[in-house]
Amino acid sequence: MSGDGESHAEFLADFAYLSSIGGLPSGGVDREAATIADAKQRTWLGGWLAARGFDVHVDEVGNQFGLMTFVEGAPYVLTGSHLDSQPTSGRFDGAYGVLASAHAANRVAKGVRSGAINAVFNLAVVNWFNEEGSRFPPSMMGSAVFTGKLSLDTALAVTDARGVSVRRALDEIGYRGDFDGLPVQSYAEIHIEQGKELEQTGHQIGIVTGTWGARKLAVTVRGEQSHTGSTLMADRKDALLGAAHLIAAARALCEEIDGVLHTAVSHLEVYPNSPVVVASEVRSNLDLRSPDPAVLEEAERRMRVTAVRIERDLNVRIDLAKTHSWDRNDYTPAGFALSERASADAGYSHREILTVAGHDSTNLKDLVPTVMLFVPSRDGVSHNEYEYTEDADLLAGLDVMGGVVRQMVSGALQSV
Amino acid sequence: MSGDGESHAEFLADFAYLSSIGGLPSGGVDREAATIADAKQRTWLGGWLAARGFDVHVDEVGNQFGLMTFVEGAPYVLTGSHLDSQPTSGRFDGAYGVLASAHAANRVAKGVRSGAINAVFNLAVVNWFNEEGSRFPPSMMGSAVFTGKLSLDTALAVTDARGVSVRRALDEIGYRGDFDGLPVQSYAEIHIEQGKELEQTGHQIGIVTGTWGARKLAVTVRGEQSHTGSTLMADRKDALLGAAHLIAAARALCEEIDGVLHTAVSHLEVYPNSPVVVASEVRSNLDLRSPDPAVLEEAERRMRVTAVRIERDLNVRIDLAKTHSWDRNDYTPAGFALSERASADAGYSHREILTVAGHDSTNLKDLVPTVMLFVPSRDGVSHNEYEYTEDADLLAGLDVMGGVVRQMVSGALQSV
Repeated sequence: MSGDGESHAEFLADFAYLSSIGGLPSGGVDREAATIADAKQRTWLGGWLAARGFDVHVDEVGNQFGLMTFVEGAPYVLTGSHLDSQPTSGRFDGAYGVLASAHAANRVAKGVRSGAINAVFNLAVVNWFNEEGSRFPPSMMGSAVFTGKLSLDTALAVTDARGVSVRRALDEIGYRGDFDGLPVQSYAEIHIEQGKELEQTGHQIGIVTGTWGARKLAVTVRGEQSHTGSTLMADRKDALLGAAHLIAAARALCEEIDGVLHTAVSHLEVYPNSPVVVASEVRSNLDLRSPDPAVLEEAERRMRVTAVRIERDLNVRIDLAKTHSWDRNDYTPAGFALSERASADAGYSHREILTVAGHDSTNLKDLVPTVMLFVPSRDGVSHNEYEYTEDADLLAGLDVMGGVVRQMVSGALQSV
Repeated sequence: MSGDGESHAEFLADFAYLSSIGGLPSGGVDREAATIADAKQRTWLGGWLAARGFDVHVDEVGNQFGLMTFVEGAPYVLTGSHLDSQPTSGRFDGAYGVLASAHAANRVAKGVRSGAINAVFNLAVVNWFNEEGSRFPPSMMGSAVFTGKLSLDTALAVTDARGVSVRRALDEIGYRGDFDGLPVQSYAEIHIEQGKELEQTGHQIGIVTGTWGARKLAVTVRGEQSHTGSTLMADRKDALLGAAHLIAAARALCEEIDGVLHTAVSHLEVYPNSPVVVASEVRSNLDLRSPDPAVLEEAERRMRVTAVRIERDLNVRIDLAKTHSWDRNDYTPAGFALSERASADAGYSHREILTVAGHDSTNLKDLVPTVMLFVPSRDGVSHNEYEYTEDADLLAGLDVMGGVVRQMVSGALQSV
């Protein structure tokens, strides 16, 4: 199932064209969910799939599917990722996975048509809506709705910073469809690692065995408007100062806690955000991640203790509300062996690995047998225009995905 | 020159109507510069002035004037303040001063017409454009252009958070005029104190003798985009974390430094401001104020030292650029005696006081003899919907302004 030179050249040419949509001078892209750039790449992908015999559909939350039916009435092996990006981000995150899935599926479809592959299940490619969550929170929105973890109405009502709802944004780009889903038998996704483990250990393929746990909290700090100049310092209730202390404490916690912990505050809105008015309200995120559930629990506990201390010291009020979380969670063990076979068959080195970042597969794996693969990221650079993966690694991942999808369509991953 | 009951009742009725424009349920207002609410209050004020015989004009930066000419060719005594507000702010800040000036000027004009007052100079009321600077920085924009401290083109090109320029915003509300100014002989302004000194010492009128110095800096913290989950903590260059440390340090400096110092960070923009991307750039203000120039100098020096330490500790770059500043600066001494006379004549207690906040008079006093008066603010609450001044204090201020303007028109304040 390894690709020949022609299919490799086609993949790289397609990836270069896809990367030009919403492309930046740096080589990165800016293709946030339901923007004009997103509309263009969706239309390009739909055309690519339709030209190769896939039936293209869009569901009510903008997930885009290409269906290839081999066995009438059988469920589908689904494979894909997301085309949307963070603002000014890299060209590989998500998009590589969608294109590798599409090419791998096309290879398998050719194999089925030629009689080389005996299909037990049907095959579909997916471009999930709004995995990034930068314009419309939360992240992994399309796959969350598809898997019933988030209601359609809730998702459609989410608004961006300018007050535009998901519903309106999808309508404006013409990508709110009426496809009502498909029976999914199993799921496969490939993604860049967004870490340095494969690079540092010299492996080409990562077989993801589990995901770090994550707790995502919404922080609201409330103070009181006053004059930045004339109000006595002792009389101030400065919400931005409270937020600043919480941000510093979240970072310090990584060194203080016993265990592996990543923390971040990266999204912050200040009200009234005037140069001469002390802030009365600050809203931010708080992102806690660890492979160890006990560390996550302790991290959240300590942040709550810190918040109470800040409230008392700075005369503000702090609310920490958990918005979503996932536990350390393992992928389908039967998929590991299948992935190892595909990697060995194609002649690439592989290694088992955990994912820290969430992926659409995080949602899918709770419902169906799921395979998740990584290819290396240079220096682990991620969510950055300078994110980079070598062509050779892209093609290795494509070949292994071809082998994975072939086995899945042939019925190799029938149970969790 | 004290007001009679009828003129007091008229003032309070006018102030109540003015406060209803852009009024909030709390009693506060939301009337940022060049918004629809600002257009409405300007039109109301213009009508009020025109109905009482003032010639109403608007200059190229939206400053609104009402001229009353007694002596052809003589320069003008100018009095006023600003009608624009912070978003969700109090109804007194600025608006009280404009209305008190208008009523005081109208009283004096009646006195001149009746022969009770001998006018040496002419008289004009002004509503300065965009004193608050919340939508379009910097603050005190209209008076800065009028006094030649800021170029007209620079001011008109400033854009708000949505990219709308001052030029376009003024055009949209129909308040970019072509009046090319008037010869100003002296200036008088009255404002709420925005502090607690008058209240705590039990005085009705504050005679402002000087202004605290201020240094306003633009802060840029630069890091690098990365993934909030997967990027190793040691690899992160988190611009928001750098800003948080700087905000905390600015507040701590007030306790650390030897002398009186107020500091604030109240305006902050994060890029890309996504819940899953470590911030690559944060821009904020930094506001330092003190009555003591040596303290200000030392505060800025220490903040620069702190910035260098944060750069090293957190692997970010910090740029501190001074955008504007003013030194401890005194008002016109001859105006103090004149104000004392007016206050004593009207039967109110007075006290000399410094202003911490900047006012349009801060700009005017560098060009012409300038009087600045305060009335008490309950609890010093400022830039807040719950800002409050008693009716009795509003009326005391109006009466003293009447006496001040009468003396100025009669030629009492001829030199600095």
